[in-house]
Amino acid sequence: MSLLRPAALEALLPWVGASDPGRVHTEGRMARVALEDARDRIAGFFATRPRQVILTSGATEAANAATFGLLAGQRRGTVLLAAVEHSAVREPSQRYASGLVWAGVSQTGEMDLDRWESLLGERRPALAHCQLANHEVGTIQPVSEIAEMCRSRGVALHVDAAAAAGHVRIAFDELGVDAMSVSAHKLGGPRGVGALLVRRGLRIDPLLIGGSQERARRAGLENVAAAVGFAAALDEIRPEGALEGEAARARAQIARLRTVCETVPGVDVYGPRQEALRLPHLLCVGVSGVEAEAVLLGLDQAGIAAHSGSACASEGLEPSPVLEAMGVEAQRSLRLSVGWSTSERDVERAVEALPRVILRLRSLAAG
Amino acid sequence: MSLLRPAALEALLPWVGASDPGRVHTEGRMARVALEDARDRIAGFFATRPRQVILTSGATEAANAATFGLLAGQRRGTVLLAAVEHSAVREPSQRYASGLVWAGVSQTGEMDLDRWESLLGERRPALAHCQLANHEVGTIQPVSEIAEMCRSRGVALHVDAAAAAGHVRIAFDELGVDAMSVSAHKLGGPRGVGALLVRRGLRIDPLLIGGSQERARRAGLENVAAAVGFAAALDEIRPEGALEGEAARARAQIARLRTVCETVPGVDVYGPRQEALRLPHLLCVGVSGVEAEAVLLGLDQAGIAAHSGSACASEGLEPSPVLEAMGVEAQRSLRLSVGWSTSERDVERAVEALPRVILRLRSLAAG
Repeated sequence: MSLLRPAALEALLPWVGASDPGRVHTEGRMARVALEDARDRIAGFFATRPRQVILTSGATEAANAATFGLLAGQRRGTVLLAAVEHSAVREPSQRYASGLVWAGVSQTGEMDLDRWESLLGERRPALAHCQLANHEVGTIQPVSEIAEMCRSRGVALHVDAAAAAGHVRIAFDELGVDAMSVSAHKLGGPRGVGALLVRRGLRIDPLLIGGSQERARRAGLENVAAAVGFAAALDEIRPEGALEGEAARARAQIARLRTVCETVPGVDVYGPRQEALRLPHLLCVGVSGVEAEAVLLGLDQAGIAAHSGSACASEGLEPSPVLEAMGVEAQRSLRLSVGWSTSERDVERAVEALPRVILRLRSLAAG
Repeated sequence: MSLLRPAALEALLPWVGASDPGRVHTEGRMARVALEDARDRIAGFFATRPRQVILTSGATEAANAATFGLLAGQRRGTVLLAAVEHSAVREPSQRYASGLVWAGVSQTGEMDLDRWESLLGERRPALAHCQLANHEVGTIQPVSEIAEMCRSRGVALHVDAAAAAGHVRIAFDELGVDAMSVSAHKLGGPRGVGALLVRRGLRIDPLLIGGSQERARRAGLENVAAAVGFAAALDEIRPEGALEGEAARARAQIARLRTVCETVPGVDVYGPRQEALRLPHLLCVGVSGVEAEAVLLGLDQAGIAAHSGSACASEGLEPSPVLEAMGVEAQRSLRLSVGWSTSERDVERAVEALPRVILRLRSLAAG
């Protein structure tokens, strides 16, 4: 449901056929201006300086690059992280670290701060990852506290903000972390673009090399149109109250879905109950007695796009490592999300269809 | 001058706001169909199977991924290459290899086959790179001969075809190489997309990880619109005679530019003279007594987009390592290119402006 915002589409269109911003000639200079203007606005949205923004092909590349870069591409140090991190964080950690140290989470998916404190002291990792909020259950993590702990121990910290960006306000410089990954398409921007934000003064070994683009921090021709679309999507939620208004609406829609889920027997809602502790637009539920994929297809027939698994795990509907880490039955989870384009009618349709589809599938299974 | 082809723009537009192809729901299925249809057409253009095509964010990522993947990310073996390779090939080789073995080139930039033969035998590299054609001077390399040598010695071979693809016909399976990188924007497709082609049966360790997209060979949300635009650009030059027609027109335009360059004293044309040995659309010239950047700006004022340095070296106009490898004075080179959109009028304007700008700059310098 993370559709492209019309303003983003309109803004990016004139740049789809644009020239290489690296060229000296006039067209190239115009593309350069558009690119740097987009970078300014992206930086501004995240309350940081333009030169802290490295544009990438998406959050997956950003998380890979952060892990590679903060470990300087060497197997020289362990990485501290929880199993609720996205696979684009977990897998590069496995590759580039000499070992992994696993932080635990609560049953609602929240980082255990005492455990973080003791692991940071005992295991002295070279790098830690802490997502800003979880991509499946929406749990918002205590990133400021973890950033403080990491800073005081001299441990580099990367924050995966792909799920959270655009749904909660993030002031990058204030967070006090070393790097943060964001994605454009998750907040209504175009696909194929994201950013790695790096703290002032941090030199990071680039993952993609062979060109001096992005101040020699990411080689490859700049995707001007995508950057412009990314910035334009952020413009929509930049004004005071705009992001907050969308979040309040999403929260009300999700509350409605949550209420109906709670009325269906054998349906469990995962993640924190308290609104301040979770993303406004996500709901993760477990459905006993039916396969998640069958529910998805049933909802699809009712015109509702639902998800199972992560947006970035596109093939295969495997048990979720996030729910496993939280200690809940992972086989049958279903993720519902709302976006800027979700209408009250969409929500009412889901409210009507969800119990009907689940009960129908159960009666079919009972034969 | 590698502008987006109108057919590519038209084809990609409906997909700019498209759903995640990894989703089960209807919209996701439609995006999946569009993506796989695009992959089929990209594969068909390069005379290979769809499953040999790994879509990437561009040729830079593809060349980085090929180097990482073919060396399995380990510093376990040397890489054989010539200094005329693009920096997106040279730099990852430096990073991932235990050492580099440099193959030499002739004064026109062509690989020295005898030297390749002896280096392959003596130095036993783990991987070799051979560009299909050079990105600055246009020299077409004897890839089939080099592929044969590499195969017989069990050396993996990656071909950077970013400069050549779309300008000469390439049948990937017939080439008999392990991997090949291509870029969409260099042939009139959109920015932000390219492909790594891998030979049948080759398992390649992915560079970007944390998602099972592209058959677990490249993690990250698929850029459906860009893939569709890439395929549509190829459709324009797919029919028999279409690419050849564009190439013949480019060749005539470049011949015209070459002729005028040869009339200006102190201007040298680099690369092979023989048409069959060079790309149809590029001309690299050296201009003595003036700075390349000043010539570029002068041409720009006359409405002509000219280039200096590689398309992927966007900041800084350093001496070209390509020309250095060929043993020619590198400080003052200028690359002229024509594209599908270059008119005869554009060429005539360049023919008029080029000698005028150079002579004017020289007279200013003589003061």
